[in-house]
Amino acid sequence: MRAESLQAAFNNSSDSRQQKKCKVQNVLHSETEEKQHGAEDKAARMTSLQLSAKEDMLERFLDASARGDLTQVSTLLSHVPSLINQTGYSGWTGLMLAARNGHYNVVEALLSHGCDKFSVNSSSQTAYDIAKFWGHRHISNLLGRTTDGSQRVLPGSDPHQQENYFSRETLDRLSAKRTDTVWLEEKQSDPDTVYLLFSNLSPMVCSSQEDDNAGGETKLCRFRYEAVKDLLPKPATMLIFLGVEKRKTPSSSSQTVDGIQEPPAWFAINTDEVASELLKRCREMNCSFPKTPNRDLLKLNEEEAGVVAQARSVLAWHSRYSFCPTCGSSTKLEEGGYKRSCLNLDCRSLKGVHNTCYPRVDPVVIMLVIHPDGNQCLLGRKKIFPVGMFSCLAGFIEPGEAMEEAVRREVEEESGVKVGPVQYVSCQPWPMPSNLMIGCLAVAISTDIKVDENEIEEARWFPRQQVIDSFRGAHPALTVPPRQTIAHQLIRHWIGMNSNL
Amino acid sequence: MRAESLQAAFNNSSDSRQQKKCKVQNVLHSETEEKQHGAEDKAARMTSLQLSAKEDMLERFLDASARGDLTQVSTLLSHVPSLINQTGYSGWTGLMLAARNGHYNVVEALLSHGCDKFSVNSSSQTAYDIAKFWGHRHISNLLGRTTDGSQRVLPGSDPHQQENYFSRETLDRLSAKRTDTVWLEEKQSDPDTVYLLFSNLSPMVCSSQEDDNAGGETKLCRFRYEAVKDLLPKPATMLIFLGVEKRKTPSSSSQTVDGIQEPPAWFAINTDEVASELLKRCREMNCSFPKTPNRDLLKLNEEEAGVVAQARSVLAWHSRYSFCPTCGSSTKLEEGGYKRSCLNLDCRSLKGVHNTCYPRVDPVVIMLVIHPDGNQCLLGRKKIFPVGMFSCLAGFIEPGEAMEEAVRREVEEESGVKVGPVQYVSCQPWPMPSNLMIGCLAVAISTDIKVDENEIEEARWFPRQQVIDSFRGAHPALTVPPRQTIAHQLIRHWIGMNSNL
Ligand SMILES: [Zn+2]
Ligand SMILES: [Zn+2]
Repeated sequence: MRAESLQAAFNNSSDSRQQKKCKVQNVLHSETEEKQHGAEDKAARMTSLQLSAKEDMLERFLDASARGDLTQVSTLLSHVPSLINQTGYSGWTGLMLAARNGHYNVVEALLSHGCDKFSVNSSSQTAYDIAKFWGHRHISNLLGRTTDGSQRVLPGSDPHQQENYFSRETLDRLSAKRTDTVWLEEKQSDPDTVYLLFSNLSPMVCSSQEDDNAGGETKLCRFRYEAVKDLLPKPATMLIFLGVEKRKTPSSSSQTVDGIQEPPAWFAINTDEVASELLKRCREMNCSFPKTPNRDLLKLNEEEAGVVAQARSVLAWHSRYSFCPTCGSSTKLEEGGYKRSCLNLDCRSLKGVHNTCYPRVDPVVIMLVIHPDGNQCLLGRKKIFPVGMFSCLAGFIEPGEAMEEAVRREVEEESGVKVGPVQYVSCQPWPMPSNLMIGCLAVAISTDIKVDENEIEEARWFPRQQVIDSFRGAHPALTVPPRQTIAHQLIRHWIGMNSNL
Repeated sequence: MRAESLQAAFNNSSDSRQQKKCKVQNVLHSETEEKQHGAEDKAARMTSLQLSAKEDMLERFLDASARGDLTQVSTLLSHVPSLINQTGYSGWTGLMLAARNGHYNVVEALLSHGCDKFSVNSSSQTAYDIAKFWGHRHISNLLGRTTDGSQRVLPGSDPHQQENYFSRETLDRLSAKRTDTVWLEEKQSDPDTVYLLFSNLSPMVCSSQEDDNAGGETKLCRFRYEAVKDLLPKPATMLIFLGVEKRKTPSSSSQTVDGIQEPPAWFAINTDEVASELLKRCREMNCSFPKTPNRDLLKLNEEEAGVVAQARSVLAWHSRYSFCPTCGSSTKLEEGGYKRSCLNLDCRSLKGVHNTCYPRVDPVVIMLVIHPDGNQCLLGRKKIFPVGMFSCLAGFIEPGEAMEEAVRREVEEESGVKVGPVQYVSCQPWPMPSNLMIGCLAVAISTDIKVDENEIEEARWFPRQQVIDSFRGAHPALTVPPRQTIAHQLIRHWIGMNSNL
């Protein structure tokens, strides 16, 4: 789908006679349709001359919008106001064409004349999408302004920020309740409470019957208190309070005290029971504990992926941090699973607040490095990657390091390429075990590649067109990581950005 | 200084008759100077009528630029091309005035006529600074374009990104050398090598003689191998390889193998020797190990602050993580201080790569929440703050959480205010002990405040003007944290942003 919209935009940019012809044909077509939909007698009276005049007017209007000829746009609109929302080739309006070609003043004028900025072309793109795609940020900001004014408050912000896999929060974490042991115990035995069952840090899931390679969806197995209560008192069981379901209507969330039923709470349990025995607890077919979470957890839907990101990260912390790093003593789990306290009462970690007691999140920079020419990007591959797959470079942020500096250091260490400007794009929690992937674009200021073979097997500059082809899927020179990864999203983001095409 | 430039910009925005008069006086003044500098006879022939005509022309040019009247700007320039770089009130050019008031087309036209975009006004601001200050992002992007084209490659990026205190990297960390024990040992005894000495995680510093409250500068005490070699073999000594000094000329950095002398290496030592004895090692006066790093480390210069951020974070990790969290055994320091390995050969942490062996960095979101009206910001105070000080809200990013979500959760938890759009601004390593402060702006979508009293004592909406006054320092309604904090920088960033003033 995205490949199609890419194609449409690229075709559009070459604006050949061929297309102008198509445009006209299209106009004719939509005129015809309009007539069929309820103005047939009027249409019958319309001569071919009139038709051709209207068609010519629209073509001139669209052409002037595309060229940024504000004077002609204004003149044509004053004669035929209805031109403003009419569409040509592939459903493009004047607004879309002006947005495509970066004509801020035309976009502004069309909006002030009441142009419908929400209409979409045949690729379901609004003028906003088009401006964003082509990197005309001041235009996308203009078009993206929300009616509640929040866009006006933050001029540079993107109102449609990328949501990455593992990022969706369907639960309200209610962290204040973590210290409320009475409330937590009540929730544990509440019949509405949902339990997820983990074994060796993998959640129990039901797979659809489809062939595994076809990407069949996987669902979390959900349990009630009765089905898991025997596990709760066991010493090897880790119990994590995940939160309560978010209310659909935000206004009612503050009324929980007024006797209105509270939304269901969610908990995660990790246990060392035999996995095959645990599977018998579920009545669904095809249940399993995935053995390769890196791959299998990517089949969840967005909502469930977000919950698993939270649960797995916290559970992974407990499984690695059972002992106090400060004194080596045993620790106990507290605060709904969000704290471990040392059992040695003399331990330094009990005096004041120390990070040893709280879950660890490791910030990682992941970056798409763009060639100084703007038309190539740097991708690398590790030995463990599938044949032909290349991805973004990445690395852990070190102590005392800003993320922009971490990007520069990692890229130079891994590939020998020096980096100048760095721009944050979006981030992604990655629960293997508990990384926060901070996705950036970076511009190279040198181009010679010298790979650190301990880190990566190969790194190469790929021309934009090759990367686009890899998304289209026809005989690609490379394959990129799956859509659930922030690497994929960064690459896609770049393809859609301002280009010199 | 900054307060002055703020003042200048604010004054300018009210553009009164008073100022127009100043403008004219200023023009006269600079004309006079020009004459004095070498065109005196010509000047002598200039009648007061001519002077007044030129002056009038400049005023009309500056006024047209400020109003965005492209036609008049072009007409005036075609008559008197030299107007393009002339300055009026407080050294403002037409470019600056157009940038101030968001007139993209005028800025574009002036640039195409060869306007000097690097000239500065009397507050040392370029037109770029002014556009950025007032939030005209498409104009600052246009003006900020670098000649190497890297700005063109990343359309939305800011070529002059805020550098926060503790962020500067003066050393090349050379992480590949951490596993090269032979090289590291050679460097340890190299006479060029620089050692920093820490006691209880504080670096030894020399303070200038000035009164402490006057903000006298503090410098790191630097030692050579001979002065510290007795400490190195002691079991309680932690030795961290920090890196080598960055070459001033980037081109020579790749030639270290060709017999050219390598730049000096830096190490940090933390020891449990008696502090007063350690101080005797330094020949400088007024040496100490600061007892309140939160305050005292902010007196270092930017270069040294960056080194301390790295060293203190790693040392703090060692001091809290001496034992293996997975099995409770003792650990040993490896890889130049960047790894701790479990001494229990059966430990799970030795199979595969585990974060238990590597330094911890805790990502924290810190955000300035802006009122939906765009003219107030939400600041809170903790009980421990000095009287009258308010700051940004902040909190740790939790496992499985994207940073934008962490912003929304923390703000709602601490203040009851709901947040919509979130925009990353800049980040700051904060070595107390090892946080990565991720600074964001956020727009509120609700305004009622309900403070979580466990977290903060009070939170309030402050009008923009009160915040501006706090920077000016005259009877402020609040004080903001010092300039070395990212909170201060976020607040300053907002003051300078697109506003409804
Ligand atoms: Zn302990
Ligand atoms: Zn161990």
